Amino acid sequence: MTKKIIGVFGPGNVSEADDEWQAAASVGQQLARRDCVVLTGGLGGIMTAASKGAREAGGITIGILPGTRISSPANSYVDIPVFTGMGEARNAINVKSCDAAIAIGGEYGTLSEIALALKAGCPIVLFNSWSLTPFGGRGLPGPLIASSPEEAVAMALTAAANE
Amino acid sequence: MTKKIIGVFGPGNVSEADDEWQAAASVGQQLARRDCVVLTGGLGGIMTAASKGAREAGGITIGILPGTRISSPANSYVDIPVFTGMGEARNAINVKSCDAAIAIGGEYGTLSEIALALKAGCPIVLFNSWSLTPFGGRGLPGPLIASSPEEAVAMALTAAANE
Amino acid sequence: MTKKIIGVFGPGNVSEADDEWQAAASVGQQLARRDCVVLTGGLGGIMTAASKGAREAGGITIGILPGTRISSPANSYVDIPVFTGMGEARNAINVKSCDAAIAIGGEYGTLSEIALALKAGCPIVLFNSWSLTPFGGRGLPGPLIASSPEEAVAMALTAAANE
Amino acid sequence: MTKKIIGVFGPGNVSEADDEWQAAASVGQQLARRDCVVLTGGLGGIMTAASKGAREAGGITIGILPGTRISSPANSYVDIPVFTGMGEARNAINVKSCDAAIAIGGEYGTLSEIALALKAGCPIVLFNSWSLTPFGGRGLPGPLIASSPEEAVAMALTAAANE
Repeated sequence: MTKKIIGVFGPGNVSEADDEWQAAASVGQQLARRDCVVLTGGLGGIMTAASKGAREAGGITIGILPGTRISSPANSYVDIPVFTGMGEARNAINVKSCDAAIAIGGEYGTLSEIALALKAGCPIVLFNSWSLTPFGGRGLPGPLIASSPEEAVAMALTAAANE
Repeated sequence: MTKKIIGVFGPGNVSEADDEWQAAASVGQQLARRDCVVLTGGLGGIMTAASKGAREAGGITIGILPGTRISSPANSYVDIPVFTGMGEARNAINVKSCDAAIAIGGEYGTLSEIALALKAGCPIVLFNSWSLTPFGGRGLPGPLIASSPEEAVAMALTAAANE
Repeated sequence: MTKKIIGVFGPGNVSEADDEWQAAASVGQQLARRDCVVLTGGLGGIMTAASKGAREAGGITIGILPGTRISSPANSYVDIPVFTGMGEARNAINVKSCDAAIAIGGEYGTLSEIALALKAGCPIVLFNSWSLTPFGGRGLPGPLIASSPEEAVAMALTAAANE
Repeated sequence: MTKKIIGVFGPGNVSEADDEWQAAASVGQQLARRDCVVLTGGLGGIMTAASKGAREAGGITIGILPGTRISSPANSYVDIPVFTGMGEARNAINVKSCDAAIAIGGEYGTLSEIALALKAGCPIVLFNSWSLTPFGGRGLPGPLIASSPEEAVAMALTAAANE
């Protein structure tokens, strides 16, 4: 049986002292305990925190890197690095390869992953992330909003089970 | 001398009766008159409207298509179709290839282009498009906001001149 | 410690009765026994044979797919499917993500992977595959040529160890 | 009416003194005179020669670049630069966007374009380029072989007219 692959997306410029780092580490850990593979962009900040949490709980981690093994090596908690050499366009691969995803915090790279996930039909849960309002309040199906790391994991697993 | 390339981004499901179509056609026309090349995603809705406006004003139009010439042919106002075969990942190419861009209306594909533009440092002007609020109000440099098609063109040209 | 990732490339239109299928299955098995992760394009033929061989020997298998989980599902021996949605352009990802690779048989997709591997500096071993002659006999560093599946595996592992 | 887009592919490390440079410049010139748009990889060597030849004959030139406008600027004979930021994976875009293509000389990047063209069904003409032999002499439909720049252009135009 194939394991579920859950993405954890977020900015690279978050450090261990930040709340978002702790949230991402907790999310990674919980996902690994539920027997999910954790997929990230393979770099620092949220991507490292989630991979580290998953690794420490015995999980498998994938990193989809923007560059090559020379230009953008994976963080040391990535078991399986995939080097795309295509920059931010790799964000489209991230969302296509997950059963569901969780975005934590976020700058513009994360915003593009949220948008690409919604476009691709990949269920996406936001925790302390972007607030989005389409012009004219059009009724687009939006992201799920979680109020804790635990709720984010629960929402993502439920959505992934329905895929 | 190389002409400036200005992107016009927006959803494919807009029809000629919609205000956004008229805005996109006007933007395309104004850009062509200012001797800019108009770059779009090459499909329908806003992409057709902007290309049509530019073509009718004697401009050159490029379309960066998500599929192949069989699966996703360009609209008939695209002079130079580029077939990427890479789906929404082509949005990353759109923003890298423009001197500046204008987003009109927008669903999630457009939102991803806005985010990728801001990430890549491509100046982007929004007209009747998304309202974005990062969590915690972090001071990210945001998009430019225009209140008319004319202002959108003026802002994009000023930004492109400074590139 | 990160495991070595070895690619196995070859055409999708090979069936179990073909010699190349048996060679690919043997290569996959040997690589898994040497504790390597086996990376393929995730589809049929050589890609299925190599993944099946690796899986049966207890190894981990990755598939880098050209489409989405709907349009191009992975074969059932892929543990970790990565859906790129970018068609043959995904071949460039395959070669960037391997420590070394083995090509078996091959049509034009495989030829592109051989060329992209040589361009990217990924060591590539050919078994019963293309014969390539540059115009004018220019002294380009070429692929390694193996005369058996065993030799192909030995050559790939030696090359990967030197990466 | 849309103009035909013809690709000219070849290595970047060819200089003006080389026969291949002269052949590429001649091919570019002839294509422009026949009212074709010339598409290249946008960099040096054959790509510059073909674009220069086309430009001097009054043609339009497109360059599909591997990087960004900072990392890989287009040569000065490219009218419309498209920046993909995806490295050699952009070769897959080149072949999808042409009605037919001509390869002149060539190292491994060019070989990948030849292979991707044959895979994608883009007619490709070789002049002083690779000699390819599939294992076991399988009857794959191969590239067209020209013995002069003039013949290469004639073959490409005939193939493009049948597309």
